Amino acid sequence: MTRIALDASGGDFAPTNPVLGALSALEVLPESCEIVLIGPRAEVEAELRSQGEPPDRISVVDAPETIGMAEKPLSAVRSKKRSSIVLGLSMHKAGDVDAFISAGNTGAVMAASTLLLGLTDGVERPAIGAILPSVPDPVLLLDAGANVDCSAEELLGFAYLGAVYARDVLRRPAPRVGLLNIGEESEKGNAVAKEAHQLFRRSDHFTFAGNVEGSDILVNKCDVIACDGFVGNIVLKFYESTGRIFADLLKREVDPAILSGPGMGRVLRFLDYSEYGGAPLLGVRGISIICHGRSSPAAIKNAIRVAMQSVDSHLTQHIRDEFAEGGAVA
Amino acid sequence: MTRIALDASGGDFAPTNPVLGALSALEVLPESCEIVLIGPRAEVEAELRSQGEPPDRISVVDAPETIGMAEKPLSAVRSKKRSSIVLGLSMHKAGDVDAFISAGNTGAVMAASTLLLGLTDGVERPAIGAILPSVPDPVLLLDAGANVDCSAEELLGFAYLGAVYARDVLRRPAPRVGLLNIGEESEKGNAVAKEAHQLFRRSDHFTFAGNVEGSDILVNKCDVIACDGFVGNIVLKFYESTGRIFADLLKREVDPAILSGPGMGRVLRFLDYSEYGGAPLLGVRGISIICHGRSSPAAIKNAIRVAMQSVDSHLTQHIRDEFAEGGAVA
Repeated sequence: MTRIALDASGGDFAPTNPVLGALSALEVLPESCEIVLIGPRAEVEAELRSQGEPPDRISVVDAPETIGMAEKPLSAVRSKKRSSIVLGLSMHKAGDVDAFISAGNTGAVMAASTLLLGLTDGVERPAIGAILPSVPDPVLLLDAGANVDCSAEELLGFAYLGAVYARDVLRRPAPRVGLLNIGEESEKGNAVAKEAHQLFRRSDHFTFAGNVEGSDILVNKCDVIACDGFVGNIVLKFYESTGRIFADLLKREVDPAILSGPGMGRVLRFLDYSEYGGAPLLGVRGISIICHGRSSPAAIKNAIRVAMQSVDSHLTQHIRDEFAEGGAVA
Repeated sequence: MTRIALDASGGDFAPTNPVLGALSALEVLPESCEIVLIGPRAEVEAELRSQGEPPDRISVVDAPETIGMAEKPLSAVRSKKRSSIVLGLSMHKAGDVDAFISAGNTGAVMAASTLLLGLTDGVERPAIGAILPSVPDPVLLLDAGANVDCSAEELLGFAYLGAVYARDVLRRPAPRVGLLNIGEESEKGNAVAKEAHQLFRRSDHFTFAGNVEGSDILVNKCDVIACDGFVGNIVLKFYESTGRIFADLLKREVDPAILSGPGMGRVLRFLDYSEYGGAPLLGVRGISIICHGRSSPAAIKNAIRVAMQSVDSHLTQHIRDEFAEGGAVA
């Protein structure tokens, strides 16, 4: 039996989108999977009932407090013990659930995951992994915003975390890891990138694909791209905006109805990284998945699917093993 | 009389594209503008003659040596005194021409510009300004790759350079300058960004638009965006690739002929930043414009137009004044 906790009060469209996402996930997931919705009981149950008789495999845990999207993460986590984020991660820590998913305050999910679950031995900092579309398969970029000033050793840690995730969840048996940089040559980049290049080159935990430039991110040059959270966050948010801008341009310059035309659904899905199911917070002792605040029911459903895969593949155990093997990171 | 030197041996399509770009620029530029093509004389003259009788306002200066795209910049500049890059910038230094444009080896143009023209007093490092599309007007991002490890003071210097360029060439009388960061709040970002935020806030040389996130780059939140050359270069190259990927997706998923359909030309032009005429190297004592190696004749023509505007608006003088006023940068 796998139990996934889902924050039903986090995100811009709670509890509706979490509830809809959970219901549609249960239609496709195996019978052994249960979902625990965590949020203000009356509201969540009303939303559930509005969709018909709730299935047996869904339950509700009451979380009367709410952490707002703009609240200071650390103080909110410390003061709101009965919030969905704190309750859900406490249940995960206690072994009552196997994973936690939230579209709520990203900083609060990160802080609570680190405080409550703790870090994997050997991990200096947890990293947010963002899945970006790439032809033919998506690429994992990390860190996407958890850490802004990183050492070369920390970047190597991100490479390890990403390689394990790529093997377990993205199904890449021999992941190629690239280092985000401004040129292919080893001497290119800022001081940290130059040092990281040497560490990556010497590592035998993954196949080093070399430096990857901005133009290489979406072209399947590798399975995992390591970078600090400052540049990673900027690239991720920039990417999101380009999809919207392309769509607006097409509507304005070509045809207001173009986005509903044939084939366009596939283009828009390709550009929409929420399709890939949330961003894992890697390096904590458990499965914690952060969704975009604007997540659709389909995005929530995909995040639940990714959480299931993470549990089934023993991701947490594999990350522990990776860092235990001779102290992966210098 | 304004004389623009154009590197006719730099770039992937030399001398054809520089020659074609120069010829089409002369059709629209005022009679007072002359273009000096610098490259291997026989080749350049043959290309010119293949287009008909060359106009009076175009001349050729022989540069028998070529700096390849992959050569080490500094040693190439030092050893190849008769290359188009070294000759063109030497002519600019001597006052024989008013500006220099090249689609050749970017590092070599930067190195030669810095060595031969020298830096403006008070400028610590020159910056490459990249013009990105934004609705309704393009935005200037700098530094786009000249400097990878930057201090907060250097970022402030980029803000000054960008503000002058925006006033003189982009015609923004009161430029809004943003600081590229991972959140709007002043305490967000890495150590340098946090410090730079305070410097920007205290400056009275420009209107500070606050921190801008990756998602704000293309949405007209400001006229100028300051960042270090590591993140700037990654964003610029990533941007280039998204346009290509988007176009490929449309062809594959919607209609192989879609790119030639009505209105699509405007979309593709919007996405193609070469339309905006090359990247100025700012902070050197002169006008030096770097074009993409793959520049089309239209891109070269636009770079010539931008060089003319830079000369006519007295950009070099205005940058000198900006940094002279009470030592702009701390």
